[in-house]
Amino acid sequence: MSFQQPPRYRPQLSHAQASLTHEVLAIDERGRESTISIPAERPLTVYVDKRELVTLMTLGGAPEALTLGYLRNQRLVRSIDEVVSVQVDWSVDAVAVVTRNGIADVEERTAKKVVTTGCGQGSVFGGLMDEVDRITLPADARLAQSVVYRIVDTIRTQQSIYKQAGSVHGCALFSNSGELLYFIEDVGRHNAVDAIAGLMWLEGMEGADKVFYTTGRLTSEMVIKGAQMGIPFLLSRSGTTQMGHMVAQKVGMSLLARCTGKHFLLLAGHERLVFEPELVEAARLA
Amino acid sequence: MSFQQPPRYRPQLSHAQASLTHEVLAIDERGRESTISIPAERPLTVYVDKRELVTLMTLGGAPEALTLGYLRNQRLVRSIDEVVSVQVDWSVDAVAVVTRNGIADVEERTAKKVVTTGCGQGSVFGGLMDEVDRITLPADARLAQSVVYRIVDTIRTQQSIYKQAGSVHGCALFSNSGELLYFIEDVGRHNAVDAIAGLMWLEGMEGADKVFYTTGRLTSEMVIKGAQMGIPFLLSRSGTTQMGHMVAQKVGMSLLARCTGKHFLLLAGHERLVFEPELVEAARLA
Repeated sequence: MSFQQPPRYRPQLSHAQASLTHEVLAIDERGRESTISIPAERPLTVYVDKRELVTLMTLGGAPEALTLGYLRNQRLVRSIDEVVSVQVDWSVDAVAVVTRNGIADVEERTAKKVVTTGCGQGSVFGGLMDEVDRITLPADARLAQSVVYRIVDTIRTQQSIYKQAGSVHGCALFSNSGELLYFIEDVGRHNAVDAIAGLMWLEGMEGADKVFYTTGRLTSEMVIKGAQMGIPFLLSRSGTTQMGHMVAQKVGMSLLARCTGKHFLLLAGHERLVFEPELVEAARLA
Repeated sequence: MSFQQPPRYRPQLSHAQASLTHEVLAIDERGRESTISIPAERPLTVYVDKRELVTLMTLGGAPEALTLGYLRNQRLVRSIDEVVSVQVDWSVDAVAVVTRNGIADVEERTAKKVVTTGCGQGSVFGGLMDEVDRITLPADARLAQSVVYRIVDTIRTQQSIYKQAGSVHGCALFSNSGELLYFIEDVGRHNAVDAIAGLMWLEGMEGADKVFYTTGRLTSEMVIKGAQMGIPFLLSRSGTTQMGHMVAQKVGMSLLARCTGKHFLLLAGHERLVFEPELVEAARLA
């Protein structure tokens, strides 16, 4: 797949809608009552060719993309062309996926369970770490310091469920010049990253010239997912873990942690970041 | 089990040690190099009676308690008396659990996969939600406003991996007069809560007169785990989700979110919190 020649084919998708926030009574330390918004959290049980596969707990903002991205990132379906339809029905909290040829060895491939660190999609079926060894990211991919700032500022000003209700993670896909392509929130950031993987799959979009941003931590699973999508740059408002850092170094991914305002910590793939003298100088003077 | 008559029996436990932080090179926006600490993240593959059950991604601070709490909270082992030994070997990233009579129906009981919202232990085997219907928390349990403040202040001043390296969640168990009983950190807060469940199990400690604190969000899975431990009070620095709130109301748990300094938002189980007039007045004047 390449960005220049997107596949014409698209599966049939529902466009299921659900309310993303819910109001509850809150009483504060002064005994004052108020009504606050909290994010929705609902189960979405995934049926592939009428076989129950998994139940995802989700905000519910992009269930079709989430389902596609889950199947993609778990390597259960190899190509979007294999997917005939994705039909979400919130009245039964379920999504029905029809594939052209079914999932090969689904028994065996969903047997091995790894409970990961990530918020949200905390379960990856086995074998993903093995796959990391086969991933190489484009050696020449570079990101300008000014684009890092642009991305962080775009996220800061983005309308979001987080600003309304808190308790959700956001993930975003940017071009390497800093244009926002997708912004997805979910109660679990792993759902958010999977939903973005699903949208990229639908558009036949490559990761090589993209930048991925997450509000969540850069744990091993997040870095693996970024690498699976072929994205050389992973930015976070938060920090990383030893295994996330190890995987990033292994695949040559650039990790930028603690991205806020004009601050960041470049933790891996140091050679990919292009420092701009005037911005470095401005930071020194700040 | 009751706190007054702790069971004499304790399984054989290893006391495995592992480094909890790791140093990496960081380059900031000024191009300055420094060395920062990040939390460890390592796999722990759980073998029960020589059968591979699951791999948990963990900080590694309390692997024996984590393993016990995982088996307890997943309802795979009903009683601590059933556990003969828990032996962690970091040289192979594995823990070997020996049970007296094995796990009944392990095939069937580990088959249904729910991918949850929680950080860390993001996978619960099916049936936990059904169990919620059978849980009732003590109707007369109360918590004083001053104890909420004491708990928040104790957490604030607690030595932690978080302060050294960030990117971990902390969970703590307190008495309902505010004494800290256990404090556990992990890369996933679900590991931290499971480790506390494991420690409570070892001591035959009941939850009815306890308060649970987490730095993480009060998602459905966290509330379910708190309810499973029989704890009527769940405090968090963070917020909640619709399903977390729903489950708390269902079981009659008191949820206090956004607990920082002398601020909190009481979101469920309102009747359990005892407001203290002088503290309410002080908050009004603050």
